[in-house]
Amino acid sequence: MSEPVVVDAMGGDHGPAETVGGAVVARREHGVPVVLVGRAGEIRAELARHGAVGEIDVVHADEVVPMGERGAGAVASGSSSLKVGCELLRQGAGSAFVSAGSTGAVVACAIRGVGRAPAVLRPALAIALPSVTGGATVLIDAGATSDPTPEMIAQFALLGASYAQLVLGVADPSVGLLSIGSEPGKGNRLTRRVEELLPGLPLRFHGNVEGHDVLAGTVDVIVTDGFTGNIVLKNVEGSVRAVLTLVARSGAAGPEALRGVARRYDPETHGGAALLGLSGTVVVAHGSSRAATITRACVVAHDLAGGGIVARVRDHLAAEPVT
Amino acid sequence: MSEPVVVDAMGGDHGPAETVGGAVVARREHGVPVVLVGRAGEIRAELARHGAVGEIDVVHADEVVPMGERGAGAVASGSSSLKVGCELLRQGAGSAFVSAGSTGAVVACAIRGVGRAPAVLRPALAIALPSVTGGATVLIDAGATSDPTPEMIAQFALLGASYAQLVLGVADPSVGLLSIGSEPGKGNRLTRRVEELLPGLPLRFHGNVEGHDVLAGTVDVIVTDGFTGNIVLKNVEGSVRAVLTLVARSGAAGPEALRGVARRYDPETHGGAALLGLSGTVVVAHGSSRAATITRACVVAHDLAGGGIVARVRDHLAAEPVT
Repeated sequence: MSEPVVVDAMGGDHGPAETVGGAVVARREHGVPVVLVGRAGEIRAELARHGAVGEIDVVHADEVVPMGERGAGAVASGSSSLKVGCELLRQGAGSAFVSAGSTGAVVACAIRGVGRAPAVLRPALAIALPSVTGGATVLIDAGATSDPTPEMIAQFALLGASYAQLVLGVADPSVGLLSIGSEPGKGNRLTRRVEELLPGLPLRFHGNVEGHDVLAGTVDVIVTDGFTGNIVLKNVEGSVRAVLTLVARSGAAGPEALRGVARRYDPETHGGAALLGLSGTVVVAHGSSRAATITRACVVAHDLAGGGIVARVRDHLAAEPVT
Repeated sequence: MSEPVVVDAMGGDHGPAETVGGAVVARREHGVPVVLVGRAGEIRAELARHGAVGEIDVVHADEVVPMGERGAGAVASGSSSLKVGCELLRQGAGSAFVSAGSTGAVVACAIRGVGRAPAVLRPALAIALPSVTGGATVLIDAGATSDPTPEMIAQFALLGASYAQLVLGVADPSVGLLSIGSEPGKGNRLTRRVEELLPGLPLRFHGNVEGHDVLAGTVDVIVTDGFTGNIVLKNVEGSVRAVLTLVARSGAAGPEALRGVARRYDPETHGGAALLGLSGTVVVAHGSSRAATITRACVVAHDLAGGGIVARVRDHLAAEPVT
C-alpha cells in the first residue's frame, strides 16, 4: 500500500504529546507511511521535539472532539480531526485511519465519513484477545453497536470470521455465540434468535459459549452485541490487572517477572480494535494510548489495509449462505 | 436458627458422592443443622461411608433433575429433590435451601416452591466477588433473570444493597450500574432507562460503572441484568484461571505460591450465590461443587437465614423512596 495511514493526532487522553511520537516511530522503525491530522501548530511543535518536521505530512483540522463526547455531538462538530481524517480515507488519500478518540465518536464519524460497506447493517469492533492456549480469540462486537438486532449480530459473526482469517491466519474459523449456557436454547431473547440465524450463514458455527470461554481458546471467534462485548473486554482487562496485582502483593512473584503476562493483555500488544463493515480500514486505539500503542495501531492498520480486510469482508458477506 | 439447612443431595455434577460429605462436615465442624433430600438409599450409603447414619435426617425424593435441565422441565418433573427441598422450606421445616443443581432449574423450582416475597417482581442471584482492594463487590443479578425489565433491574439494586449490608457489613452500600461508559447516559436502551430509575430509590447510587470496575472495589454493589451478570461472573472465573495458568507457565511463580490468589476466587471460598427476593433463603452452589464447597454453602445459607436476609430485603423494598 502506498497510501499513508491517517492518524488522528488529537485523539486519546494525551493527544499530540503521545500520538505524534507514536506515528514517527511507526514510520521510522516499521516503514509505515503516515499522515497526521489535527491542529497543525501543536502537531508541528511535537514533530520538532522528535526532529521530524518535514518528514511527516500534516493536515490541519481546527476542532478537537473531547474524549467524553458521544456520537451525535462528534458528528455535529465542525472540522474536527476525526471528521477530516475520515474524509481523507473516503477520498482515497489514506489507506487506513487510526484514532484513540472516544469510541462512540470515532464510530459515528467513521460511519458518516467513511461510509458503510455495501450490505453491511452496522459496523462492529473486533479485537483479538490472547488465549491461555497460546493462540487468540476474536471478540466481536467489542462496543460499536450497543443495541443491535439479531440480524446485525449474525452479520457480526461473518465480519469476525473474515477478521480471524486475516489476523489469526485460520482458514475456516469456528464461531461461538456468547451466552449463559453452552446448551442449545440457553440465553436471552436476543441470543436465542441469533442462535437460529447462525447455522444458515457461511461460517463454522460452534454453538453457544460462556464467559469462561473468552480466554480459554474454545473458539476462534466469539460473537455478541456491542454492550456485552464492551463489558467483557473491559472485564478481561480489569481481571488481568487485578490478578497480577494480587499475585505481586502476595510475594509469589515480583512485578518484573509478571511483566510478560501483563504485556500479552496490554493494548500496546494488540494495537486496538478494528472497526469492521466500513468502506475503509479504521482502527480504534485505547483512549489511554501512549506512543507505543499508537505505533502498534499504525502497524496493525497498515497490515489490515494491505491484507485487504475491506474486500475480504465484502466477499464474505456476498457469499451464498450454506443451506 | 433451630431449623436445619435443607441440602439437595442430588444436585451438582457429582451428586451424593460430594454433597453428603459436605453436609456432614457442615454439621460436625461448623455446628450447622442440616437435612438431606434425595434418593434415601443412595444418601444413606454415603452417610455410612462417613459413619453418619442416624446423625443427619434424610427426606426421600424419587426423582433427580438432570444438570442440563431448564426451568420449565424441572418444574414439570414429579417429586424431585429440588421440588421436595423447596417445599420443606415453604412449610417452615428448614431455615434455608442449598442446591448445586442447574441454576435455571433451582430458580424455577424455588420461585414455584418457596415463592416470591411480597412486592418482588423477579428474584436475582447475588454473589460477593473479592476485589483487589481487599474488600468485595456484590454482583447482582448473576444469572436468575435473563430478560428483565428496567423496573426489575432497579429492584435488583435494592436486593443487592440489602445483601451487601448483611454480608459485607457496609451500612450504606454504594451501587453502580454496569454499563459501557461511566458518563451519564452511556449504555444501551435498557441501562439508560434503569439509570433514570435508580436515583429515585432509597439507595446510594454511584452512577455507571464499567467492566474493569468489577474487581476494582469501585462500588459495594454492581447491578446488571442476569444475562450480562452471568457472563461477567464466568468471565471473571475464566480470566483468573487463565492469568494464573500463564503466570505459572512463565515460571514467574510456582503453582503452590499462586494458590492463595486462586483460593480467593474459588467457589469454595464464597460458597455460592444467594437467590434473593424469595420468601425463604436459597443458596445456589456451583455445579462443579465438591464437598468443601457444599460445606461452605451450608454455612453461608445458615448465616444468611440467621441474619434475617429475607426480612431485610422486605424492609428495604417497603422503604419510602428518597425524593
